[in-house]
Amino acid sequence: MQARVGIVGYRGYSGAELVRILQRHPLVEPVLLEHREDAGAATPIRRTKAPAQLACDPQVVRSEGLAVVFLATPPEVSMELAPALLGAGARVIDLSGAFRLGTPENYAAWYKAPHTQPELLAEAVYGLPEFCRHGIPSARLVANPGCYPTAANLALRPLLEAGVVDRAAGIVCDAKSGVSGAGRKPSLKTSFCEVTQNFSAYSILHHRHVPEVLQVCGLEEREFSFTAQLLPLDRGILETIYFRAQGVASVAALLDIYDRRYASEPFIRLFEPGHTPDLSGVARTNFCDLGVTLDAASGRAVVVSAIDNLTKGAAGQAVQNMNLMLGFGETEALL
Amino acid sequence: MQARVGIVGYRGYSGAELVRILQRHPLVEPVLLEHREDAGAATPIRRTKAPAQLACDPQVVRSEGLAVVFLATPPEVSMELAPALLGAGARVIDLSGAFRLGTPENYAAWYKAPHTQPELLAEAVYGLPEFCRHGIPSARLVANPGCYPTAANLALRPLLEAGVVDRAAGIVCDAKSGVSGAGRKPSLKTSFCEVTQNFSAYSILHHRHVPEVLQVCGLEEREFSFTAQLLPLDRGILETIYFRAQGVASVAALLDIYDRRYASEPFIRLFEPGHTPDLSGVARTNFCDLGVTLDAASGRAVVVSAIDNLTKGAAGQAVQNMNLMLGFGETEALL
Amino acid sequence: MQARVGIVGYRGYSGAELVRILQRHPLVEPVLLEHREDAGAATPIRRTKAPAQLACDPQVVRSEGLAVVFLATPPEVSMELAPALLGAGARVIDLSGAFRLGTPENYAAWYKAPHTQPELLAEAVYGLPEFCRHGIPSARLVANPGCYPTAANLALRPLLEAGVVDRAAGIVCDAKSGVSGAGRKPSLKTSFCEVTQNFSAYSILHHRHVPEVLQVCGLEEREFSFTAQLLPLDRGILETIYFRAQGVASVAALLDIYDRRYASEPFIRLFEPGHTPDLSGVARTNFCDLGVTLDAASGRAVVVSAIDNLTKGAAGQAVQNMNLMLGFGETEALL
Amino acid sequence: MQARVGIVGYRGYSGAELVRILQRHPLVEPVLLEHREDAGAATPIRRTKAPAQLACDPQVVRSEGLAVVFLATPPEVSMELAPALLGAGARVIDLSGAFRLGTPENYAAWYKAPHTQPELLAEAVYGLPEFCRHGIPSARLVANPGCYPTAANLALRPLLEAGVVDRAAGIVCDAKSGVSGAGRKPSLKTSFCEVTQNFSAYSILHHRHVPEVLQVCGLEEREFSFTAQLLPLDRGILETIYFRAQGVASVAALLDIYDRRYASEPFIRLFEPGHTPDLSGVARTNFCDLGVTLDAASGRAVVVSAIDNLTKGAAGQAVQNMNLMLGFGETEALL
Repeated sequence: MQARVGIVGYRGYSGAELVRILQRHPLVEPVLLEHREDAGAATPIRRTKAPAQLACDPQVVRSEGLAVVFLATPPEVSMELAPALLGAGARVIDLSGAFRLGTPENYAAWYKAPHTQPELLAEAVYGLPEFCRHGIPSARLVANPGCYPTAANLALRPLLEAGVVDRAAGIVCDAKSGVSGAGRKPSLKTSFCEVTQNFSAYSILHHRHVPEVLQVCGLEEREFSFTAQLLPLDRGILETIYFRAQGVASVAALLDIYDRRYASEPFIRLFEPGHTPDLSGVARTNFCDLGVTLDAASGRAVVVSAIDNLTKGAAGQAVQNMNLMLGFGETEALL
Repeated sequence: MQARVGIVGYRGYSGAELVRILQRHPLVEPVLLEHREDAGAATPIRRTKAPAQLACDPQVVRSEGLAVVFLATPPEVSMELAPALLGAGARVIDLSGAFRLGTPENYAAWYKAPHTQPELLAEAVYGLPEFCRHGIPSARLVANPGCYPTAANLALRPLLEAGVVDRAAGIVCDAKSGVSGAGRKPSLKTSFCEVTQNFSAYSILHHRHVPEVLQVCGLEEREFSFTAQLLPLDRGILETIYFRAQGVASVAALLDIYDRRYASEPFIRLFEPGHTPDLSGVARTNFCDLGVTLDAASGRAVVVSAIDNLTKGAAGQAVQNMNLMLGFGETEALL
Repeated sequence: MQARVGIVGYRGYSGAELVRILQRHPLVEPVLLEHREDAGAATPIRRTKAPAQLACDPQVVRSEGLAVVFLATPPEVSMELAPALLGAGARVIDLSGAFRLGTPENYAAWYKAPHTQPELLAEAVYGLPEFCRHGIPSARLVANPGCYPTAANLALRPLLEAGVVDRAAGIVCDAKSGVSGAGRKPSLKTSFCEVTQNFSAYSILHHRHVPEVLQVCGLEEREFSFTAQLLPLDRGILETIYFRAQGVASVAALLDIYDRRYASEPFIRLFEPGHTPDLSGVARTNFCDLGVTLDAASGRAVVVSAIDNLTKGAAGQAVQNMNLMLGFGETEALL
Repeated sequence: MQARVGIVGYRGYSGAELVRILQRHPLVEPVLLEHREDAGAATPIRRTKAPAQLACDPQVVRSEGLAVVFLATPPEVSMELAPALLGAGARVIDLSGAFRLGTPENYAAWYKAPHTQPELLAEAVYGLPEFCRHGIPSARLVANPGCYPTAANLALRPLLEAGVVDRAAGIVCDAKSGVSGAGRKPSLKTSFCEVTQNFSAYSILHHRHVPEVLQVCGLEEREFSFTAQLLPLDRGILETIYFRAQGVASVAALLDIYDRRYASEPFIRLFEPGHTPDLSGVARTNFCDLGVTLDAASGRAVVVSAIDNLTKGAAGQAVQNMNLMLGFGETEALL
């Protein structure tokens, strides 16, 4: 028997990607939960069967027996909906930033708004399976990581744990994202004519995804310089990460750290020395691709980390978390 | 001394293109006329001199002595503004569809709204210089042609005049446009992620630019099948026009018709047999490029017509009209 | 037990798409067959298992027991390889134009080269399952259809069979394709800087895919005007097809013809009146989407037909044919 | 009377851009000099006047009285041609890397080939007018700077001169370029389908443009980490430059350094605090746009530097140099 799972925000890019992945998941039946403007928009294709569309309320959760509800909604909507859904017996995977940061104070500082559910924030488990797998199977509420921090944390934390990064010299993370990362709501900034043939930086040094990296990697803000940039393409994040290496003499030694840490991780792929990931290689996959360059004489090191922002950076990782929560194979519907 | 000219709607794509062209025009000084939400948005560049920004009202027209005012506004705004601007002594070049069609009835039928200025409509001169050059120099109000009709009329009318098109067999005009043709106002349809890697048709057989072709070419609606389509690129229109040729035996004969008709036209370029225009060739120019293919045995003929929708299809042609109205060289600032 | 199937030309775009589809096919194990420059290029990803790479020769076909070999090669290579592969006991699905046309004379006229395997040409079955399903299961050699004709034939043949197309008035097929249709071999015409922000027509009235439409639809060349055009995007074909309708009074009547003809076809999707297919909707799918517009008064009709040129236009349809040949479910690995 | 100038390599992207700029230069008449495969390709447009095409040899230089010859050629071709052209009395502006580095040893180390013209190398003047304007008017041979170093040097040198960069902490320059920077020769790496919807890094830490930055800024290689990356767009370079600031307490203080250094520079534009340059803003212009961000508490600083790689990064800067060499206004044909 298939587990029934709900999706709120299914018309956004992350939500639509969730539907796409879950529709081919053999152990799950997706149900669309209409919340405000989400309703409507039946397909124009004749004789098509679309997933069921129901109201997003606790009664539906109970009567439909939804095991999990995905929230692909803005943080303020997630804070509003999560308590009732949990109260109705569903477990929640939230794709927004609402439950990712450690304290209400930290949330308020980066999101410029008060946190209205501090108890749920305290309970939430950060859903980066490669580093938090332990807590996910039993979690009631999983905070699905941000897209930028996923690529950065997977690249940096093994090296920081191994002590080969000179933190005092500072780490630079130059991040580039496809436009779908900005969401589906129309705006001049994401209009075709403004983006095509263009490239620009935003939130230089102050992006609200930064604290997720500080938190997972144990870094101070002054040690980590982050810039977000908008690529003229649909989907994908590539981060070029610069640091001063210490105690390693070769690319092979750096790769060896990754190889050991990620030996049994199904979604991390390492590139041979002299090769480097690109966005085509991860498009529509749940992989994080990592490539390493080192100038041994000076210690200058560069790691390139690539993911699909809608998959490993959002919907794919959310399904990975659901698989862990429901006791399915971790890669189900994701390979 | 430079003529002073005003621009309303300078933040839209056609309006911005007008500013760009007029700033390099040696005989003209552009003035931005703020209308409603147009205001604001000073440049973020330090120490820059931008054109003056003044209120859009008759008093400014008078006190500044504006010879011409360009309206790069929606038709309902153009109908609202034109009378007062003309009353204040300016001549008006309107880039909207407000004054292009012959009768208020025709306007109402295609624009689904009543025409509020029927007398001005009767007075307006259609600003396609290649066919209406006679009336433009003395016009008070010029209706700048639509982008799609400009490419179609320049391709079709010489052949229709020469009698080499079998009208009974029907003419097909398959038109493709860059996204800037849809204007700068954000919408889901022109969002980057919806347009990139995509291509789609719209207004099939019913686009409101159709009557401009019927009018200029003297065609019946049943003789002319038109489809508009959205290309994943910024600017440019390419139309592939199919008809049954009669009374011509070769591509050379068709080209000869164009050669004679356009011998002294500075903005029409003809392609040698076997060659065909593309959008790169006309980007940021005021040219209309034409290429012809003929299967002599069957009479099947294809004309490819390419323009930049923001230049020859809008702002460039508007400046061409201004040059004629103010007695300047027709190509000033346009080559 | 899985059937083993070989792929020649796996580094081209169609060949790589074949590998991608076959790797997720539960009933098949793909084997890469190296032919000339195809060899090499192991993945730069550490610890990856790629499909086996073997020499492309009859002995391998026999020793590996390959049930089917796909040829994603130019027509002259397909003509060279097919006899030996068939002789070694494999069945062949050829993605080139080598075996699609009815006679060696027709091939020579359109491909400007002699056909070197006239007996195989006579034996080959045209692999458009929606119209040739009968002959495919037992075929030794299937000629997989061209991308452009697939979209055109699926749109036109039901209407022609129903007699609602006025053939004397002529049919126009204005076709637009993504760049992958031109193959992977580098050329100036498919260089990024030449294609991006550009759009152009080629092979106007003389594309070598035309005879596949004439053949399947029973049309004369003089009745069918076809233009191919290059879109600035990766994959997808959209054709806008114009004709004069006769004996039908509404879009509903046209849709009804399709509905009946395609009632049990898994890969044809029809759009409700007022809606029209786009390329995003078919990307990376084996669907052909069809939408219809009719001006009942004049009989002017437009059908928009959209496919992914690499899937339904090449590799997907080839797997559909393989499924039929090997007695698998027709949609296996394709939904 | 116009000066006559020659262009070798006019079919490449930089060469074509040179022709485009020089055709609108009022004081210059361009002559195309055919070298090897450059020949041919008359325009398909009827009745067009193209610039004269002559053989590229010293006799032509003399008989035509060419004042300047531009070499838009690979370094080995520039080394081959420069001596004879200089010998024939022309002055040479070389757009390749042949004459940019200080010593033959340095050239050999970075370009992996011996330098065949060490005496000319010693004589050449590095053509970055903002820092080398003194030597350019009288130079016989100008080495036009590389595209990446132009953006980096204009951003970094004023700050290094002012002593506000903590060099020991290291400088990171994360550079992104449009595809035209790779030249017009077809290759798989610059094929449309490989580039569109993709983004990738190359020459990480080892790009041969690095020594031009070390040279102009007086940096050691170990102090400067540089990565080049390929954007899915035609033209433009944006560099995101990270360093640790010292002795400055605000963005205003950093901007003040630029303001003073560049007060009379026509092609440097500074962005107000909180604003940042993008590629659209510099496309088809000779500007270098600079924007600054500073976290005063930690000293983390980011400068964004944007140019058009074909204009300020190549052809535009070459014309700027020509203007200085021939005593014209420096901005002639460039604003």
